[in-house]
Amino acid sequence: MSAPARPGGAITAVYELWGDPAGAASRAEALAVEQSHEFPSHLAPSHARRSLGHVLDLSQTGPETVLARVAYPESLAGGELPQLLVLLFGNCSLLPGVRLVDVELPPALARAVGGPRLGVAGLRELGDAPHGPLLATALKPVGLSAAELAEQAYQLALGGLDLIKEDQGLANQRWAPYAERVARCGEAVARANDETGGRAVYFPALNAPVSQLAERVDLAVAAGAGGFLVTPGIGGLDQLRHLAATLPAGLALLAHPALLGSFVTSPTSGIAHGTLFGTLLRLAGADAVIFPSFGGRFSFTPAQCREIAEQCSADLAGLRPALPAPGGGMSVQRAPELVEFYGEDVVLLIGGSLHEGGDLRRSAEAFREAARRATRG
Amino acid sequence: MSAPARPGGAITAVYELWGDPAGAASRAEALAVEQSHEFPSHLAPSHARRSLGHVLDLSQTGPETVLARVAYPESLAGGELPQLLVLLFGNCSLLPGVRLVDVELPPALARAVGGPRLGVAGLRELGDAPHGPLLATALKPVGLSAAELAEQAYQLALGGLDLIKEDQGLANQRWAPYAERVARCGEAVARANDETGGRAVYFPALNAPVSQLAERVDLAVAAGAGGFLVTPGIGGLDQLRHLAATLPAGLALLAHPALLGSFVTSPTSGIAHGTLFGTLLRLAGADAVIFPSFGGRFSFTPAQCREIAEQCSADLAGLRPALPAPGGGMSVQRAPELVEFYGEDVVLLIGGSLHEGGDLRRSAEAFREAARRATRG
Repeated sequence: MSAPARPGGAITAVYELWGDPAGAASRAEALAVEQSHEFPSHLAPSHARRSLGHVLDLSQTGPETVLARVAYPESLAGGELPQLLVLLFGNCSLLPGVRLVDVELPPALARAVGGPRLGVAGLRELGDAPHGPLLATALKPVGLSAAELAEQAYQLALGGLDLIKEDQGLANQRWAPYAERVARCGEAVARANDETGGRAVYFPALNAPVSQLAERVDLAVAAGAGGFLVTPGIGGLDQLRHLAATLPAGLALLAHPALLGSFVTSPTSGIAHGTLFGTLLRLAGADAVIFPSFGGRFSFTPAQCREIAEQCSADLAGLRPALPAPGGGMSVQRAPELVEFYGEDVVLLIGGSLHEGGDLRRSAEAFREAARRATRG
Repeated sequence: MSAPARPGGAITAVYELWGDPAGAASRAEALAVEQSHEFPSHLAPSHARRSLGHVLDLSQTGPETVLARVAYPESLAGGELPQLLVLLFGNCSLLPGVRLVDVELPPALARAVGGPRLGVAGLRELGDAPHGPLLATALKPVGLSAAELAEQAYQLALGGLDLIKEDQGLANQRWAPYAERVARCGEAVARANDETGGRAVYFPALNAPVSQLAERVDLAVAAGAGGFLVTPGIGGLDQLRHLAATLPAGLALLAHPALLGSFVTSPTSGIAHGTLFGTLLRLAGADAVIFPSFGGRFSFTPAQCREIAEQCSADLAGLRPALPAPGGGMSVQRAPELVEFYGEDVVLLIGGSLHEGGDLRRSAEAFREAARRATRG
């Protein structure tokens, strides 16, 4: 969804209000106050009006839904992502029947937050994959040793996958401690690349305690990682932004949806799929956004997946586009359908099903071949 | 809710599964796999069974609800809060009809995460408030100058409030930049304490970008802050834990619910009120947990508020209890009802309505007097 022109210097949020449309106008007014002043307007000094949100317009879209466009002065965010999130949806996340369905940002604010550091072009360059879908998989399951996971990484890189990420369930468990695991997996992918002349990229899972974050980044960089799998639902969107702002040049960030499902599962509250997985994760710096595609183990509809993919590359104050990375129960057989649906600017993420048959290299090659055929088709 | 005995060394999660009970057993099995291996079990090597979750039991609780107790090996969390969150609800946040309603932790894991640094007794000592409800308010609205907010803080401290927190909407906006604001507010509260002999405690809002966190902590400590208002829905629960583990001794942490509403608004998904605002925020280190009480601007029911309050002090591997801090549209007139409902181990949080009448000191005194009467009654 795209909202009409807004006044300069305003952050515009569009909320879908569920319930009797007769009450929508007063609910929208209350919401604009709640998200800015959170204070009775008749008690606020007149000069505080400079920081008050206000309703731009309302439009009824169904028997029970009204869209309310609310403008907030840009200064309310103070140029900072955490405060922008408080402003857009902090308190009103607690109000039933309110869904954040669109966000428009002044270009200066969007650029201050930053967006993807590599974006689609940079991620393609990183993986030496100038066209066609990027092929990704996950090292798993947790419980294997570092050596076993590294052997998986080696075979998958030999088989020609572009992005070899760790499962979000790999942290620093005793079976495969982080330091040993990234050293072994980084070495394994580099060795495979030497043999094939390819450029598979290794992404360790960086679901780290705050106090361990910098050290785990350093260990992975030393091991030759090309980026990280991050979990902004756990570490916060600003940790993603921080990584995008501070990692060594050339490293990419893949966002995993862990815990973020609670924002989208209810149709009448939370945040719209495209706004959360597209706009906001991209704004925070995700080069690719993993989400469960339709037709897998989860329940996103084709329309919701479409919305995410569109917001990954829609105009967003000139920020780089991100790649949608549909996963969650995909298989090689579905590659043509997925490429048809998402287009070639996509990361195809296939996990467990590559292990069917017992020969990972062969499965990876079949995945590569299926993608090649899908792209030609 | 409290689950029966569990095998030693296991993390137990209880999920409420919504839908046809006939499908619950297979859904629970799939969930246990999803949250641990996320990998087809017939393809996992046999030694990886050491890291597989399994269903302990199922019990139907309604025509559409089944409780599934799932045990995960303690090692799956690796002793780290971010991974524990991935394990408990990461991927299954994306499954509709799955609600996390209880968590039990092995004591060693709970202690490794840490819990409240002060807890109820420590927070009472900090504010020199050995009994009765602690009285709290918020400096607001955003848009006022630092001097104006400091004058509010001064009057409120003179009036005898215990905890003077900043609104979560105060970050580093140009109207009242963080450094100037905390210096002025800290000084104002100290001056009032000097005059009254009281011990009002000032809590700046620490909704900071990751890269600014340490500096803002230092500025506030230098200004005499007694703790921080944190927003774990934005910064992540592990940032709260990190602060609890690293702040100078004696500082308290109040958790604000911004953005956390999306986890609780749908009855059929997300996380139960008591589990999120009680168990998990307390585990992460909140000394007091702010939530919108029944009867205010939001929609939590008395039963949901009761659940939060109970989980703030329920047995949790010996961790300190936290204080429930109901707010969100409370008034002095409701103090007796709130004390009756929550008991005396509570933070009563009244914001905007204290500004009615135009004399903050007097309103604070009336709040104090109402609390005194409620406690005597």
